[in-house]
Amino acid sequence: MKIVVDAFGGDNAPGEIVEGVLLGAQKHADVEFVLCGDEEKIKQVLAGRGSDKISILHAPDVITNDESPTEAIRNKENSSLVKAFDLLKQDDDVIALISAGSTGAILTGAIMKIGRIKGISRPALAPILPTKLPNKDVLLIDSGANVDCKPINLMHFALMGSAYYSILYGEKSPKVGLLCNGTEEHKGNELTKQTFPLLKNAPINFVGNVEAREYMSGNIDVMVAEGFAGNVLLKASEGAVLAVLSLLKRSIKSHLSSKIGAVFMSKTFKELKSRIDVLGKHGGSPFLGCKKLVMKNHGTSNRNNIASSIDQAILLDKNKLIQKIEHALEVSGDNA
Amino acid sequence: MKIVVDAFGGDNAPGEIVEGVLLGAQKHADVEFVLCGDEEKIKQVLAGRGSDKISILHAPDVITNDESPTEAIRNKENSSLVKAFDLLKQDDDVIALISAGSTGAILTGAIMKIGRIKGISRPALAPILPTKLPNKDVLLIDSGANVDCKPINLMHFALMGSAYYSILYGEKSPKVGLLCNGTEEHKGNELTKQTFPLLKNAPINFVGNVEAREYMSGNIDVMVAEGFAGNVLLKASEGAVLAVLSLLKRSIKSHLSSKIGAVFMSKTFKELKSRIDVLGKHGGSPFLGCKKLVMKNHGTSNRNNIASSIDQAILLDKNKLIQKIEHALEVSGDNA
Repeated sequence: MKIVVDAFGGDNAPGEIVEGVLLGAQKHADVEFVLCGDEEKIKQVLAGRGSDKISILHAPDVITNDESPTEAIRNKENSSLVKAFDLLKQDDDVIALISAGSTGAILTGAIMKIGRIKGISRPALAPILPTKLPNKDVLLIDSGANVDCKPINLMHFALMGSAYYSILYGEKSPKVGLLCNGTEEHKGNELTKQTFPLLKNAPINFVGNVEAREYMSGNIDVMVAEGFAGNVLLKASEGAVLAVLSLLKRSIKSHLSSKIGAVFMSKTFKELKSRIDVLGKHGGSPFLGCKKLVMKNHGTSNRNNIASSIDQAILLDKNKLIQKIEHALEVSGDNA
Repeated sequence: MKIVVDAFGGDNAPGEIVEGVLLGAQKHADVEFVLCGDEEKIKQVLAGRGSDKISILHAPDVITNDESPTEAIRNKENSSLVKAFDLLKQDDDVIALISAGSTGAILTGAIMKIGRIKGISRPALAPILPTKLPNKDVLLIDSGANVDCKPINLMHFALMGSAYYSILYGEKSPKVGLLCNGTEEHKGNELTKQTFPLLKNAPINFVGNVEAREYMSGNIDVMVAEGFAGNVLLKASEGAVLAVLSLLKRSIKSHLSSKIGAVFMSKTFKELKSRIDVLGKHGGSPFLGCKKLVMKNHGTSNRNNIASSIDQAILLDKNKLIQKIEHALEVSGDNA
């Protein structure tokens, strides 16, 4: 079993990416790793700490965030990302690709080089967010990769999100909600109204329309949304969390008593910070709907995020995520 | 100048509504108030504290949240809300209606009884939210009254929101942003892409596409959104704020040192709470796009919220909000 890692994607590449792979290799002795990127630079980071389980695939070029994804994937054959995709495609032993590089390029590469699962027209990104409950996260699908979706796309998001959440949290029958501006069945826009009956009849645990306010309540496991609304949900939540923390900080600074109190509350602030940073825990999000596992890590990923992403890729492979999605599509009669 | 108030709308009616009017009457000696609702019950609350500036329009019926808005407005002629609308319509001296009752019924009543400003096909609700900056709020239009909008509707939202914000905050040229899943001009869904050039050419200070993350940043004044996405933005922000506060509370409870710290931080928690409760400050939101001022107060409104809503209605009337919206439509050539 092999995992290919784009060593030159992300703000902290190649240092933190290579260090993450070293951590992953330590933990998973039965897995081989292929680092794609400039061989000399990768060797410098490895500094003799490599093993026969870690190999380098030389790729002198790098795809940046500013490039057109389609052109970059087509023309930059010697980039670390394209080399990684080519290996993922050609080598059956490679179970997953991990990159913290340009989201657009990774998505484009996944579709152009690896291809979609039969029946899926729009693959999706499904990030995990914290809820207000201590040990409960929530999955959002789609978070912005797809705008102007059709009802059938949202149905696929529901199937894929449910299968993914189920593996990640060992939850047999995750509660799937449809993002809506009200909870009643007749509420919503044209898209959600047409999607509702599809989800009702799908082989999932559909709990109905769910308001954005419930997103972080811990009451649902998978939130299904068209990409534009999903993006608003994700970014509004992030923005509001940051705004509260910023107001808190500003107020603490302006009162001596609060400054003193904040010292006593250091445990709480640490807990809050680590609870909010769920992305760090999981590392990356798979691009759901592709024939092979493509893990997109946040651009700011450090070694621990990369190591988490490796853990997740192995977990998803062992639990046959892709076969489960294919199966769900068959059951729903939708892979024609 | 008169203001008509639905004394039987909202969770705290009639007590807090009537008390709010008493506060308003104290502050605005030149304004007359008409309280609509069961005369005996209103008199009980007034308990002899009324004046010749406060009159009662007897209306024995009440419209509840569970009723069909259209049927209720059509058939419940003796309800406090319908009586209030009839008076707003018939009496030129009445400048505004205030109600904390069913949102649906208020919106339906506003359209059926009062009518829309020429050119406006979809009136909108525009709530005010806090930002992370101490003295800076942000307006959202539309927050959910209108789903499946057309580009022209969003353009009208922008004109109306800009005029409203301008009066409320004395800001000559409010920064208007278009809610989008990215900041570049080419980003967005079909609707925002078609709306972008309309806003660019409108007589407003359009600052371009704005991500949901920026909503509470304090960098924009007016966020224009289609109602479904706007509703997600509003409720996701609320939900995330509540989630952070809930996580904070739970963590404080579980550590003795944090409990002690929280006592020292009481000033900060009070500040945070009052900063977040912007709705309380402004009382209600006008239903923008109607021929007369219709103020929708939150169902949980207390006397202070009603008094704030009275302040706001007088401010908006003095500053000719409706005429300004009509003028903006003329300038943009869109009141045909």
